Amino acid sequence: MAVIQGDMGRVSEFTVRRLSNYFRILNDLEKRQISTVSSARLAEMCGVTSAQVRKDLSYFGNFGTRGLGYKVEELKDAIVQILGLDHSWSMALFGAGFLGHALFFHNGFREDGFLFRHVFDVDPAKVGTTWSDVSISAQKDAQKILTDSPVEIAVIATPPDAARELVDMLVDVGIRGVLNFAPTQLSVPDGVWLRNVNLAVALESLSFYLSM
Amino acid sequence: MAVIQGDMGRVSEFTVRRLSNYFRILNDLEKRQISTVSSARLAEMCGVTSAQVRKDLSYFGNFGTRGLGYKVEELKDAIVQILGLDHSWSMALFGAGFLGHALFFHNGFREDGFLFRHVFDVDPAKVGTTWSDVSISAQKDAQKILTDSPVEIAVIATPPDAARELVDMLVDVGIRGVLNFAPTQLSVPDGVWLRNVNLAVALESLSFYLSM
Repeated sequence: MAVIQGDMGRVSEFTVRRLSNYFRILNDLEKRQISTVSSARLAEMCGVTSAQVRKDLSYFGNFGTRGLGYKVEELKDAIVQILGLDHSWSMALFGAGFLGHALFFHNGFREDGFLFRHVFDVDPAKVGTTWSDVSISAQKDAQKILTDSPVEIAVIATPPDAARELVDMLVDVGIRGVLNFAPTQLSVPDGVWLRNVNLAVALESLSFYLSM
Repeated sequence: MAVIQGDMGRVSEFTVRRLSNYFRILNDLEKRQISTVSSARLAEMCGVTSAQVRKDLSYFGNFGTRGLGYKVEELKDAIVQILGLDHSWSMALFGAGFLGHALFFHNGFREDGFLFRHVFDVDPAKVGTTWSDVSISAQKDAQKILTDSPVEIAVIATPPDAARELVDMLVDVGIRGVLNFAPTQLSVPDGVWLRNVNLAVALESLSFYLSM
């Protein structure tokens, strides 16, 4: 297997996003027992150019053979390692509302190894109820619970004001990654990684193309 | 105001996604009554290079003045027009589960002018109940309802099998845009625009950076 060497500091979020796409396509090819794929075909399936595919992969090592293309399983395994999906990640969910529920029970997270260990909410009616094997805890107890039983990633599905108030505590307890679904741009100190997910962005992309 | 000319066929989804980001940042600057911004400052706030900002905008016309930067309101209004956010879009939601509920009541959609006109579900217990001013209809009646009262965009928040079964009907009734949250890659014929939203992609981006 190609060695994952990488100069990851230079890798943009857009490259990482494309790696996620390549991973899904390769996974699908593997399930269909297709063992090799050309960069042109992989590019076409991902809606990018083959030069883009080769450039994205070049950050991490030498993949593929001229004229033969990529070995599907080998490239998929390499991308799994690059994306950090070769082990599981523990997460805490903040906000047990409709979005929180949808995220908690989203199969794609579990399949990737992203596992919710704690769920927090401010609503006393929800505290003590159980989702799968996780009991919902009071948000005011989050600092203590996360100190005793730390996780790597916090997923925020609260209203925007509540989200902004959470960040300092999350940094204090040593959270390293924050995935924010609240409709507000959060900011975090150096050393903590944040992704703000804006659900409207995909719709704006549609309306752009529909307006052409 | 700069004329939106555009060579939009060449514009990649990534450019459109960045335009969405510029729009949010400019909106925020406008609220803070900041009237001009340099491409360097705008780029920094969006996490891209200023060359990227200039290149993205160059597809659509000449914006900004050397040494002075961009006029915030003018550039925001231009991007609103480019993204097709200068008028409203009517939408139908498929799947009135937890994710569907979260999407229906997501304020960001309404603020952008994306309005749900219909909600469909297969569950008889949900049909006839009301979300805001929209009554949930039986999914088997969708074709007739959407023929009589058409919408431009379908938002799919159903299980994957149901999503795949929906596509032909949506194309038949003249839907032009599909936003798919079901964890399956749908495909649509030419002339229909599709965005598959994969909630795991943002987590994979976090795990990439956390693994460095």
